[in-house]
Amino acid sequence: MDEHHNYHMSPDAFRKYGRMVIDFIADYYEQIETYPVLSRVKPGDIRNALPPAPPQKGEDLSQMLEDFRRQIMPGITHWQSPNFFAFFPSNTSGPSILGDLLSAGLGIQGMMWTTSPAATELETHVLDWLAEMLDLPQRFKSTGEGGGVLQDSASSATLVALLAAREKATQYQSNNQGLNRKLTVYTSTQGHSSIEKAVRIAGLGSAQLRHIEVDDAFAMRADSLWAQIRADKQKGLLPAMVAATVGTTSSNAMDPLEAIGDVCQAEDVWLHVDAAMSGTAAICPEFRTMHDGLHQADSYCFNPHKWMFTNFDADCFYVADRRALVQALSIHPEYLKNQASESGEVFDYRDWQIPLGRRFRALKLWFVIRHYGIEGLQHHIRKHVDLARQFARWVQEAADFELAAPVPLNLVTFRHKSGDTVNQKLLQMINDSGKAYLTHTVLDGQYTLRLSVGQAFTEYEHVQNVWRLIEAYAGRLR
Amino acid sequence: MDEHHNYHMSPDAFRKYGRMVIDFIADYYEQIETYPVLSRVKPGDIRNALPPAPPQKGEDLSQMLEDFRRQIMPGITHWQSPNFFAFFPSNTSGPSILGDLLSAGLGIQGMMWTTSPAATELETHVLDWLAEMLDLPQRFKSTGEGGGVLQDSASSATLVALLAAREKATQYQSNNQGLNRKLTVYTSTQGHSSIEKAVRIAGLGSAQLRHIEVDDAFAMRADSLWAQIRADKQKGLLPAMVAATVGTTSSNAMDPLEAIGDVCQAEDVWLHVDAAMSGTAAICPEFRTMHDGLHQADSYCFNPHKWMFTNFDADCFYVADRRALVQALSIHPEYLKNQASESGEVFDYRDWQIPLGRRFRALKLWFVIRHYGIEGLQHHIRKHVDLARQFARWVQEAADFELAAPVPLNLVTFRHKSGDTVNQKLLQMINDSGKAYLTHTVLDGQYTLRLSVGQAFTEYEHVQNVWRLIEAYAGRLR
Repeated sequence: MDEHHNYHMSPDAFRKYGRMVIDFIADYYEQIETYPVLSRVKPGDIRNALPPAPPQKGEDLSQMLEDFRRQIMPGITHWQSPNFFAFFPSNTSGPSILGDLLSAGLGIQGMMWTTSPAATELETHVLDWLAEMLDLPQRFKSTGEGGGVLQDSASSATLVALLAAREKATQYQSNNQGLNRKLTVYTSTQGHSSIEKAVRIAGLGSAQLRHIEVDDAFAMRADSLWAQIRADKQKGLLPAMVAATVGTTSSNAMDPLEAIGDVCQAEDVWLHVDAAMSGTAAICPEFRTMHDGLHQADSYCFNPHKWMFTNFDADCFYVADRRALVQALSIHPEYLKNQASESGEVFDYRDWQIPLGRRFRALKLWFVIRHYGIEGLQHHIRKHVDLARQFARWVQEAADFELAAPVPLNLVTFRHKSGDTVNQKLLQMINDSGKAYLTHTVLDGQYTLRLSVGQAFTEYEHVQNVWRLIEAYAGRLR
Repeated sequence: MDEHHNYHMSPDAFRKYGRMVIDFIADYYEQIETYPVLSRVKPGDIRNALPPAPPQKGEDLSQMLEDFRRQIMPGITHWQSPNFFAFFPSNTSGPSILGDLLSAGLGIQGMMWTTSPAATELETHVLDWLAEMLDLPQRFKSTGEGGGVLQDSASSATLVALLAAREKATQYQSNNQGLNRKLTVYTSTQGHSSIEKAVRIAGLGSAQLRHIEVDDAFAMRADSLWAQIRADKQKGLLPAMVAATVGTTSSNAMDPLEAIGDVCQAEDVWLHVDAAMSGTAAICPEFRTMHDGLHQADSYCFNPHKWMFTNFDADCFYVADRRALVQALSIHPEYLKNQASESGEVFDYRDWQIPLGRRFRALKLWFVIRHYGIEGLQHHIRKHVDLARQFARWVQEAADFELAAPVPLNLVTFRHKSGDTVNQKLLQMINDSGKAYLTHTVLDGQYTLRLSVGQAFTEYEHVQNVWRLIEAYAGRLR
């Protein structure tokens, strides 16, 4: 292949530049602790350094890598740093990166079974593996009437669950006729913003979302849920879905699935369970109590792209009755018709999601599960939980600090006892230092710091260092 | 790092296995023509070869690559083969694969500006570059009141456009109150199924989607559109959006944007233009007439992941008024609040899309544009159009065949004159041969074959071979 003539990168050039990028990534992980965790650039800094016009002529990839290092790297916030404790983990790993690389290299479209049967079948298979690894109810496996599928995110999983619930609640009329009755949806006051976003997108309107009160541990009160559903039914409203959370974003609270499931059964309401980050912990038997009652759920999701060493995006979404989902989302134009689809023997995952197209995302999960084995994943999850609990003990032992909520897994919510202003300053000092990155929330009306443990290379020393940093800065604020 | 002890892949192991995967991909492209284009496996074949249970202990990545070759490869349909002429191109390239690899390696979350400023700013910058490369109206650039953002697919772009249009049409009430008036949406009879899917998802209902009749070239009739909008308004309905298509899926028909835009202006209806595949052609000045009238559109999208050597997913979505979009999609929980967002000086792309999380997808586009340069992209687009036109001439010259529609760019729709059964058999014979993969549609009530040219390595010989194959099989059917 004549590279100059046809502009494509030849296989030989691909080998050369491929090694370069692989080495770049390996070097990055070896040096990652030398960067400030939270990027220090100001708005516009990155753009201003870039050429205003696109290039007329092609350039060399080694030049792009050099520009990346110089122009882009300062604008990176290092999510893979062992000192990243913000938001939630979004960890990755060597096998995940390479599985994703293989997927990009093949460049196939898995929108239907026929467009690459292996993409669909490996996905179904790996999601069944994961159902087994997490000890999920049998009804979520593809071997019965349910099944799993990869979504890009828990936000999309919630939306897709709501669309299926909406259709079921309206006797499969809303897709065709639109919404002509008021449907209601329920989550706790701690439910994720994506639930309200889904309620808006699906045309129900935010006013139809009920935020159910929580108990002292920030978990949904099933009795309040039941009272609200009954009150809504009495007003002639149509309760469509309850969105319960296993591990809320603010404080990792665990909604009581058993009691909520009983309410949903009694009132015939779709139960969706969002375990986006925490679900991964169920790989360890000792953490599975959080899933007690899951057998009554209609749908469930968790994100290997958060805490299971798999790069974004990879949300595992399960339904107990796949027909309800497919009926809500399928449209079959002539130009997509094919024998396999018409045989009814295969899954066409385009009918399980919002977009039509899809990447071969199962590859990275297959690589991750096989590289670590169940044993390796358990090792790291247990370590992260241990580290969070160790940090929580330091908080409890410190006279000036307090925990803001229980620590069931890998998230610690805590605050200095001197009030919001001190905590805000403290957070800013930590993040400005570049040595760690934490974020905040509000619990019980108080500004609260969050320490989320879960990056792949976070060890005891990193958690110890950030606690020492916090204590030192708190000392200065006294 | 002790790999045995902590289960992670060490940087050195990553270098070793990384080279292995890079070589695997390079080998794949060198051998791609030796595989049957359309996979020949039967439903269940792939799953049945896989171990039923996930592994307890970790395995070696070289074993996974070997299993991939043996167990997965037979279930791959080769979208990157130069003999792939099905559906639409979904091409990729070396620089795209490596840009995506770098993105996976960094493992950052670009949901907000602050979570990696470079991810947002490079995306804004590259989308402005593309607006310039395609000579899109200035109003779509971020430097004014509009701007571009990457979506996963045109399906999601259509949905997001509809959500903004829905909000605008209801004076920003539907997000909160839900839908209490009947909103209507318009597309041609040739509009993509994703438009109906979006209309369903957004809660309007399929019955509210109007399929406007088309002219002899399968393009929407603006006069019929106008009549329908007026009739709907007289019934008290609320027209919310017109979805026009630049290059329909079935036949690559071009809706007349100028006339449709005039209707939308006169009736105050949001105009969304979907140029998913064909948009890329506007990189060449001689193909820009298809965009005449685009200055009246409120939103526009095209997919570099189709015809611009960029791997899925990468849909470029532009709006003329970004406030309408952000107002439709933003929710600000405490745990996501940060100084940069509150300053109003930055874009937070989570508010421009359905999911919350986002990958650093701009990197692969940056690499593709810089590797090829405008000149290299023009070269390949022109070549593909030339090849399609050459094929169309062969069809026209053959006594037994006819074109089914005009060939404005890289898609040829054609059929054997002997009717549906012969064409169905012909398609099956071509695809069963493994030598090429084509798909079909229905135009004017007749079964029609589609030849879509656009894979990166498709050359004259490949198009010539598939035509010879078609002629030979047609001879056998006589």
